[in-house]
Amino acid sequence: MFNSFGEIFRFTTFGESHGKAIGVVIDGVPAGIEFDEELLKNELARRKPGKNRFATQRKEDDIPEVLSGVFEGKTTGTPIAIVIFNKDQRSRDYSNIKDIFRPGHADFTYFYKYGIRDYRGGGRSSARETAARVAAGAVAKMILKELNIEVLSGVIEIGGIRAQKEDFDYAKNSSLFALDEEVEKEWIKLIDKKREEHNSIGGVVKIKIKNLPIGLGEPIYYKLDNVLASAMVSINAVKGIYIGDTNAHKLTGKENNDEITKNGFLSNNAGGILGGISNSEDVEMEIYFKPTPSIFKSQESIDIYGNEVEVNLKGRHDPIVAIRGSVVAEAMACAVIVDMLLLNMTRKLENILKVYK
Amino acid sequence: MFNSFGEIFRFTTFGESHGKAIGVVIDGVPAGIEFDEELLKNELARRKPGKNRFATQRKEDDIPEVLSGVFEGKTTGTPIAIVIFNKDQRSRDYSNIKDIFRPGHADFTYFYKYGIRDYRGGGRSSARETAARVAAGAVAKMILKELNIEVLSGVIEIGGIRAQKEDFDYAKNSSLFALDEEVEKEWIKLIDKKREEHNSIGGVVKIKIKNLPIGLGEPIYYKLDNVLASAMVSINAVKGIYIGDTNAHKLTGKENNDEITKNGFLSNNAGGILGGISNSEDVEMEIYFKPTPSIFKSQESIDIYGNEVEVNLKGRHDPIVAIRGSVVAEAMACAVIVDMLLLNMTRKLENILKVYK
Amino acid sequence: MFNSFGEIFRFTTFGESHGKAIGVVIDGVPAGIEFDEELLKNELARRKPGKNRFATQRKEDDIPEVLSGVFEGKTTGTPIAIVIFNKDQRSRDYSNIKDIFRPGHADFTYFYKYGIRDYRGGGRSSARETAARVAAGAVAKMILKELNIEVLSGVIEIGGIRAQKEDFDYAKNSSLFALDEEVEKEWIKLIDKKREEHNSIGGVVKIKIKNLPIGLGEPIYYKLDNVLASAMVSINAVKGIYIGDTNAHKLTGKENNDEITKNGFLSNNAGGILGGISNSEDVEMEIYFKPTPSIFKSQESIDIYGNEVEVNLKGRHDPIVAIRGSVVAEAMACAVIVDMLLLNMTRKLENILKVYK
Amino acid sequence: MFNSFGEIFRFTTFGESHGKAIGVVIDGVPAGIEFDEELLKNELARRKPGKNRFATQRKEDDIPEVLSGVFEGKTTGTPIAIVIFNKDQRSRDYSNIKDIFRPGHADFTYFYKYGIRDYRGGGRSSARETAARVAAGAVAKMILKELNIEVLSGVIEIGGIRAQKEDFDYAKNSSLFALDEEVEKEWIKLIDKKREEHNSIGGVVKIKIKNLPIGLGEPIYYKLDNVLASAMVSINAVKGIYIGDTNAHKLTGKENNDEITKNGFLSNNAGGILGGISNSEDVEMEIYFKPTPSIFKSQESIDIYGNEVEVNLKGRHDPIVAIRGSVVAEAMACAVIVDMLLLNMTRKLENILKVYK
Repeated sequence: MFNSFGEIFRFTTFGESHGKAIGVVIDGVPAGIEFDEELLKNELARRKPGKNRFATQRKEDDIPEVLSGVFEGKTTGTPIAIVIFNKDQRSRDYSNIKDIFRPGHADFTYFYKYGIRDYRGGGRSSARETAARVAAGAVAKMILKELNIEVLSGVIEIGGIRAQKEDFDYAKNSSLFALDEEVEKEWIKLIDKKREEHNSIGGVVKIKIKNLPIGLGEPIYYKLDNVLASAMVSINAVKGIYIGDTNAHKLTGKENNDEITKNGFLSNNAGGILGGISNSEDVEMEIYFKPTPSIFKSQESIDIYGNEVEVNLKGRHDPIVAIRGSVVAEAMACAVIVDMLLLNMTRKLENILKVYK
Repeated sequence: MFNSFGEIFRFTTFGESHGKAIGVVIDGVPAGIEFDEELLKNELARRKPGKNRFATQRKEDDIPEVLSGVFEGKTTGTPIAIVIFNKDQRSRDYSNIKDIFRPGHADFTYFYKYGIRDYRGGGRSSARETAARVAAGAVAKMILKELNIEVLSGVIEIGGIRAQKEDFDYAKNSSLFALDEEVEKEWIKLIDKKREEHNSIGGVVKIKIKNLPIGLGEPIYYKLDNVLASAMVSINAVKGIYIGDTNAHKLTGKENNDEITKNGFLSNNAGGILGGISNSEDVEMEIYFKPTPSIFKSQESIDIYGNEVEVNLKGRHDPIVAIRGSVVAEAMACAVIVDMLLLNMTRKLENILKVYK
Repeated sequence: MFNSFGEIFRFTTFGESHGKAIGVVIDGVPAGIEFDEELLKNELARRKPGKNRFATQRKEDDIPEVLSGVFEGKTTGTPIAIVIFNKDQRSRDYSNIKDIFRPGHADFTYFYKYGIRDYRGGGRSSARETAARVAAGAVAKMILKELNIEVLSGVIEIGGIRAQKEDFDYAKNSSLFALDEEVEKEWIKLIDKKREEHNSIGGVVKIKIKNLPIGLGEPIYYKLDNVLASAMVSINAVKGIYIGDTNAHKLTGKENNDEITKNGFLSNNAGGILGGISNSEDVEMEIYFKPTPSIFKSQESIDIYGNEVEVNLKGRHDPIVAIRGSVVAEAMACAVIVDMLLLNMTRKLENILKVYK
Repeated sequence: MFNSFGEIFRFTTFGESHGKAIGVVIDGVPAGIEFDEELLKNELARRKPGKNRFATQRKEDDIPEVLSGVFEGKTTGTPIAIVIFNKDQRSRDYSNIKDIFRPGHADFTYFYKYGIRDYRGGGRSSARETAARVAAGAVAKMILKELNIEVLSGVIEIGGIRAQKEDFDYAKNSSLFALDEEVEKEWIKLIDKKREEHNSIGGVVKIKIKNLPIGLGEPIYYKLDNVLASAMVSINAVKGIYIGDTNAHKLTGKENNDEITKNGFLSNNAGGILGGISNSEDVEMEIYFKPTPSIFKSQESIDIYGNEVEVNLKGRHDPIVAIRGSVVAEAMACAVIVDMLLLNMTRKLENILKVYK
């Protein structure tokens, strides 16, 4: 609980935005997995800040150090600790926001919950923590590769403008992780405009998971869909999630049910999950990100003493958090799927006999 | 995991739709709470089937038997077991669906996951399990009363037709748990029409939680919002959830941020949660229910042997699952809040000293 | 936590000594196990009170009702709830002990912890709770049978008099579950004497587990030995546990190390566990039970108001708790082993491929 | 599970004996605790190797780096990560033991469980991991200081020779952490003799915990005593534990029961725990350590290919593991008590009202 996620494949993250380091300890990794350090670096590079004008200009190389759990290129079954030292930990001048609650941020709630104000860039509540999730997701991805399971992500909507297609291949190399090359051009204009206005904008990420075996998900309270929901909504700035056809709540049963034939389901309105368990169709979901709360317009707020103040932020921030958020969502999905794969192994006698007899 | 929910206030449910009984064991209930058996019965009565034509006509009185954990009218701190014996467990004729996967149901995934076909009305995957959740939620509600925390629910949208106001008082006594008396009339027409067509319809439930202290929610992975998301999406037929303003992903930061004054927040787009922690504003969320999968139109499917079949269901089903679902969502919200209240007690020295010094 | 035990094979018990019922919900049971109701009844019968003069004369038939999780004779993968209604729940006269803390019992600590006095026969702290553990252990045993794993138990020492051999076959049918038929005669004399003196006596139980695969136990904090220790010390009246040769702390490394040959270990001082993991030798351990605290000699104590009082108990109690305790210890060992079997399945790639490819 | 310990105050350790680093992430630390870095260093110094001839001569300074969770000298409520980089990670020559299972070690079981041989000094199974536990225990101790709770440790028996008194003050500065200055002289002779013989010896550690409030421990499965048992038996080389009077299993109820007066208990045979809950008396327990398995006598074993081999170890090892083990046991006890303090806060309404009203 608290800072850990997962039941068998369970990772625990630590670290503050401007502390010494952030990192993750991943427990429950099966022994014998090829540890692909390039994959780990690549995933972190996809999320890392400063790559282009659509992301914060913070200078972080996000170089992971693997401290344990790997020997001679393979996982050993012991915890894998990965640390990323914060390079950009310069002694900054926080005086203008030190005592102030930034609107839309967690400053207010952390202060009242813990009685402590860690004013250094949001401390633990900063999205910098998500680099540790991406590291965990990268390790999960190494396991998924053994079973040819693919987790894909991309941006499907920005500021209300929706992609007209879902091209996950294009998304991989797009600077916006856009699912639609044409619509991306509009999005770029919109984001540039919002940045110039010192504002930010919200967006929607789509996740698709391919080649899942039937049977992942543990009813009633550790279903595939409710754990994915938990994973996604735990990401900074995520406010909602929808599994399958996002109009399901408006439809009739006749429209929404997926009929079944010998060759599979005739439709996939369910988003690949029935009764909380994967049904072999692609798992599909949308994740709703609010706009970045750090904007450079004057806002009303109070300080920790209760005085009303005018907040004027400066600095470096993503104009839209959904873009880098798609990498984080993908990482979380990878972690959930591995956890579900491991749990599901234990759920019938047939599997027990395969392993022990 | 599996059939348990919560960390401190943790309940475990059991039972199949047409088995001997369903029930719940609630662990972590603090000692000294007045046990209000009427409240428990009332909550179950709100959810129970057969009350009106908007719910299945299954005949269940849902009378709870409290087997443990209460002594002389108060909770003792030991587990509270509540059992509801299934009255409507008649030896039914299941022959027509015994080997068939009903579209939209979990028959298919349960069969392949467990290698077993419990054909009796959906077995464990039936929404009947949610009566046990409502019992757990009722016990949670007894605790919330001590702190004047109120969890409200109602139906806000059916078949795409949206309520124009949020009247939670009206909803309490409405047969549809409708938030809007005027729009309810339209909904009734729509539902009646769908029922006559042997079809069903989806809907949206709204939850509002009032009088929360600041500080509930445990970042990073047991935040108030991601645990609520997990709780809600675990409910049968729920496909999505949204916290706060459901347009957040279309907005700019300037529009979406809630500015702060001495007298509180100027808006509540965040839905009462910042950084995963309650901020003293009302917690608000919407929950998206798909239409009831049990419809009485002919559908294509296969049986457990892989043969293609025509499915023609008979029986008694809710034309819209969102209505009774709102009671379940409210119960889950109560359980989450109690769990968060208990966890949050342990999170700062000041509280430790209050208890032990 | 609290009233649950195990990670995957996790059971939750509930109920008070003189409440309506006690019971258990067992989650994580794999689907497809033959459910042997006779085995369940037999295990409960072995533990049940009133069989002979070495056990309390409480009249309980301990008839289990299986409420869920079994269909057509097999486990379905859903939670198995088993309830035992308390027959002997007569309206007894508790007036003489109602407000008094019985020495050696948990009355004192429960009262101060929870602020509630459930004076009915010890309430939740009564050893009656262990019937629920035996039910869980019986279900575990059904799983162990599939892999030919055997968990044996017997009494090895009473009042300082030690068995000279370990005859687990004899123990099964002995009224004392004695491991040594000869020494049993001395034990019977000792127990009869203590009972006549209105006193009680302590004892030691031995557990032996045969045919374990190598690899059970999850280092570092869910090792086979530390989880067995936790399981055993959680049993009422258990004060200690020792794995393997109980002189290990007096020996030298040369004496204590088990050397290894092609044909196995040359000795088994380790008790079958190295580094917290089963090594294919028999797992062996001793469990130390204090004497029954309920004695019929006058004792000094205080009441809940702080007044000093003379305690004079009447009633029905085991003169030695270790005897029936051996059945409980065996049940707990079964539950631990099943949990470890399921967890260990997930710990290497090779097993994952066996299940999914 | 796996590499985490505790429910609320939960720490997760990582790292191998000769890997890059070992470390711990401590979650659930309440905010507002003075972080005493000197205390942390001192505790690690007490456990560290190479101090005298009674401990391995491995050269490790064990300097902790605190990476997160502390700001301006206080805990913030976020996870505290502490890393100790392995200085003594020289490229050693392991060729003589690379493929060999050392008797008494976990080499054999790790190899068969994980299918991987991390031959570098035992890898994860090395007692080096316990430095991370000591770091976690040090943080726990900072919390215990706020409530004046004291956890004391010392060696009470070596090679069957028992201390005649329990002088915990003397133990603190003794090179053997001896509880008896006189008997210590005999112990030194015995240890020196065993070391000269290239052998090792077992011992017993005593733990005493003072000033506990009544009420710590969560029946039925997270009792104070069974969690302490789990904590202690998880320590390398521990084979058993006994709570309270270690003769309890030989005594009668009359002898063993602790009678109660207005001024407290007349004896403390129970070791401060009744029904799994602290009763305000000192918690007392003994912990049984086997002799160090690394001895420098020739031993029979096999290699990973199944060949029989003669094992001849060289190197640096503690002649008796119980000595440094006492520091580890103390650390584990601190962690358990803090976890129990936090859990117990949530167990009655009275406490909830103290915190929230």
